This record gives sequence, C-alpha cells and structure tokens, in this order.
Amino acid sequence: MEFSPTTLSILYWSTLLSSVASGAAAVIDCRRKQFDLFGVLMVAFCAALGGGTLRDVALDRPVFWIADSSNLVFVWLGALATFFVARKIELSANRFEIPDAIALGLFTVAGTHAALMMNTDWVVASFMGVITSVAGGILRDILLNEEPQVFKCQVYATASWVGALLYVAMWHRVDPNLAAAITAITVTLLRFGALRWNWTLPKA
Amino acid sequence: MEFSPTTLSILYWSTLLSSVASGAAAVIDCRRKQFDLFGVLMVAFCAALGGGTLRDVALDRPVFWIADSSNLVFVWLGALATFFVARKIELSANRFEIPDAIALGLFTVAGTHAALMMNTDWVVASFMGVITSVAGGILRDILLNEEPQVFKCQVYATASWVGALLYVAMWHRVDPNLAAAITAITVTLLRFGALRWNWTLPKA
Amino acid sequence: MEFSPTTLSILYWSTLLSSVASGAAAVIDCRRKQFDLFGVLMVAFCAALGGGTLRDVALDRPVFWIADSSNLVFVWLGALATFFVARKIELSANRFEIPDAIALGLFTVAGTHAALMMNTDWVVASFMGVITSVAGGILRDILLNEEPQVFKCQVYATASWVGALLYVAMWHRVDPNLAAAITAITVTLLRFGALRWNWTLPKA
Repeated sequence: MEFSPTTLSILYWSTLLSSVASGAAAVIDCRRKQFDLFGVLMVAFCAALGGGTLRDVALDRPVFWIADSSNLVFVWLGALATFFVARKIELSANRFEIPDAIALGLFTVAGTHAALMMNTDWVVASFMGVITSVAGGILRDILLNEEPQVFKCQVYATASWVGALLYVAMWHRVDPNLAAAITAITVTLLRFGALRWNWTLPKA
Repeated sequence: MEFSPTTLSILYWSTLLSSVASGAAAVIDCRRKQFDLFGVLMVAFCAALGGGTLRDVALDRPVFWIADSSNLVFVWLGALATFFVARKIELSANRFEIPDAIALGLFTVAGTHAALMMNTDWVVASFMGVITSVAGGILRDILLNEEPQVFKCQVYATASWVGALLYVAMWHRVDPNLAAAITAITVTLLRFGALRWNWTLPKA
Repeated sequence: MEFSPTTLSILYWSTLLSSVASGAAAVIDCRRKQFDLFGVLMVAFCAALGGGTLRDVALDRPVFWIADSSNLVFVWLGALATFFVARKIELSANRFEIPDAIALGLFTVAGTHAALMMNTDWVVASFMGVITSVAGGILRDILLNEEPQVFKCQVYATASWVGALLYVAMWHRVDPNLAAAITAITVTLLRFGALRWNWTLPKA
C-alpha cells in the first residue's frame, strides 16, 4: 500500500511546509513568556516535529528528522523569520489557524500511514495519527509551562481522530493516494467547521 | 525465569485492571482543570500506560500497548465510564487509593521483571520497576501542569523501590511465581501502611 | 575516528563527575518546591542523565546508564550527599556555576561525537550535542513545574551549539583527542564569558 511518486512528493513538501507553519505559530506563543532565541528554536522544533518524533520512537522507526535534516533546517528558518518579523509587525496567533488546520490533516495522514506500514492494528494506527498531529502542540505547551491548549479548544484532536479512523477504514480498500487526499481534506474541513461554529467536546 | 501460564494470565488481567483504575483516577484530576473529553482520554492514557511506555522505550523493547492494544481500549473505556459517571455522582480521588496501591505492586513486578529479562543489572532493574509504577503519574501531573504528586505524598515510590529490590534479590533464588506474589503484596501493604500511618520521606 | 584509551578514560570520568555536579545542583532547586527525597533523586536523575537519554533514544542507541549503571549510582550518591549537606549548610545555586560550565563542554563533546559515530549529518550531529547538554536541565524544570531556565538565562545552549559546530568542522580533519579538548574548553570559556559579561540572546 505505497503512495505513487507524485503523491509522495506532494505529501513530502506539503507536510514540510505545514511543519514550518506549526513552528512559526509557536514563536508567537514564546513572546508572552519572554523566551530568548534559543527557546524559540526549541519550542518551534517541539511544536513542529515533536509529534512525529514520539510516533517514530514508539513505533521503533528511525526518527524522521534525523534521517532527513531538511525538516530541522526549514522549521528553524521559518522560526527565525517569524522571530524577526514579529519584532516589527504585530502577528496574532489566529493568523496561523488556516495553515494549522491543513497541517492537522497532513500530519494525521502521515502518522496513520506510518503506523499501518508497521502492521499495527486499527486502534493503534488511528491513535498514532492523532499523536503525530497533536503531541507536538502538547510538548510546546509543556515547554511554555501551560495547560495543553488542545484539551480546551474547539474540536481539534477529534477531527484528526475521525480522519485517522477513516484512513484506516480505507486501507487496502481504496487507492492510497485517494485515501490520503480524502483524509487530509476531511480533517481540515472538520477543523474549519469547529472554528466557524465553535464546536467543543464535553468538559470533565 | 519465566512465569507459569497461570501466573502470566493472573498478572496480565490484574495489571490490565490496575491500568484501568489508574486511568479512571486520573479522570477525577482532569475536572479541576476543565479538560475536555479528549484531554481526559490523553491524561488517562499517560497515567495508566505512560510508565510502561517509558520503560519499554528505554529498554528498547516493543511498546506493550502497540503490541497489544487491549490496554488502550480498556483504559479508554474505563476513562469514558468515569467521565460520564463523574458528571452525575461526586467521585472523590481517595476512592481510588486501594486499587492504586494494588496497581503500584503489580506495575513494580511487571517493570522489574521486564528489565531482568533484558539482563540489566540490579540497580537498573529495580529503577525500571519504579519507573513503570510511578512515571505514569508524573506524566499525568505534567499534562495537568502541576508539581508531581509522588514527590510530595506519603511513601509511594519508596514502597515500589523496596519491592523491586526484593524481587531482584529473589531472582534465580525463589520460584518466580512466588517472588511476584511476595513483591506485589509487600508493595501494596507498604503503601497501605504509608496511608494509614502517614509515613513520609524527609523533604528538601 | 575513535578516541585514544587515555582520552576515553579522561572523558568517561570527567563526564561522570560532571553528571554528579548537575544532579547535585538540581537538589538545590528542589528545596523551593519542598520535594521529598524521592523527588530529589528523580530530579537529579533527569537533570544529570536526561539529555543523554533523549539523545540515545532518538539515535536508537542503547541508553548509556542502562548499559553502565555507575552513572545512576554516582548521580544518586551525589544527590543524597547534597540533600543532607543542604539541610545543615546554606548552599546557593551559583556555587555550581563553574562545574556546570565544565559539564556543558563535556556533554557537548559526548553528544556530538555519539551522533557523528552514527553517521548523522552535521545539522543533526550539532543539535544532538546541544540536546545532550541542555535537555536534562529542561526536563528538571518540567518536573519543577517551571519555565525552562535555559530559555531565559545568559548564553548557555548557544555556547554548546558553537562548540558542537566546531567539533563537527574538525571531524576527520583534526585528531579527535585534540578536537574534543578544543571543543570542551571553547564551550566552557564561552559560558564563563556569558556569566562574566552577562551575554544574552535577543528575546521574543
């Protein structure tokens, strides 16, 4: 169940750009904590690449940014640019809502696919999709010494989980390139809906 | 030094039930933070399965809940049930003290045994028993953005460490099924004693 | 590119002593949180050995303190001694600034060297040097439920990164024993300079 070369290429670049956006968004959060430039690079790294790192460590795969350091380089260049731009221009966090929703969909596909390729069952595979898309944000909030935003905001991880389950259901039944597109779009649209109509989960 | 099939089966089910209890107890903690249902599932996951996950990653073993996802399913079902029950009935955290003390003993056995099977030395093996039984609670408190309870409460990790050292001392000397029973019971009784007579460690 | 037996031996013992100093320094931080003796041992463990642990897990190498538990034993003995001394004598955190700057240099060498031996590229290798030298302190601060000091203090991680890049640049060009000495001394002197002249990075 491998992707076509074109899909691989599209997924590679779109996921890389999504990582850059996640890292850049995290730079804004560092401002209220007065973190220095090194803090900014570390928080951006965790936000952008932390979820995939936990997935790879848990699945005992080679960590993706160790195998391909372009991930590190792009995320840090994006964070540096945001750091200096944010000193001149007021950047608000909600500027990143659209790229972040797209990242949510792409990371869900990447994580669920990686788990399925390791022959995990559907429960684990869908959870790995969720881990890949939300654990980076949780690590970012731990470094910021704040409660995880994803446990309090509008539907976010749930959108990822729905998409991951959809991807699992399509595995070996639907062309993987099509399945990836359907999943990524579904997750992103669900997140847009959550933001637009303020969908939330029940609270403890 | 393998367990008999009966012991394996008892340990498997009792440890699984203990995980469910640890996860359910964590749901109560989520209430004061107003976490949503996804937060509840993640905190329960970390509390119940986080210690064993860190042990498996450190020892480079396959992560146990990836190999057997019943752990995930049972913990989440227990967390869901607690989440909905806790909206109707006032559940206090000390309702979970007895199952939690039992979990402490069982997780200590599981962790120490797993490390010894990987031929670690006695220091590492006993520490792995402690990691398995307390690191989940530490991860839970990190997600809650609170100081780890286990660093402030009555004797808890120490009970686990005493049991782990006992298990290590019995390794290759005492029948493993008996050693597991002695260890689990010792840890649980020590924790009961700590709660009953308010034993604490000296503070920094 | 292996070290001579003498260098290996010097690096082994100096890094071990540096770990002990990092763990001991963390005991002082535990005081304001009123953590108990177990908390002290765990915080010291994370501060001293946490960075190397994350490096080994990310690179999929055997975790160094599992392979050689002297690391655990020495760190815990140092933490215990500090714990009891600190109850009699007022120990301030800045007593540890000199050993900590030395540790920074040694951990940078150890981390960068380990990554290069696994054939990572220069970006990853230098980042692994930084992770090895600063991630332990970040884990300590997470356990203390505080914002990472390294994101706010005078130049610290940057000194490590400069040294790591220097080590990478000397790899296969300069005798590794000499390269290790140059790197460790450069990092330590940069950190001394940062403390002396209050060098800081720009803030977000």
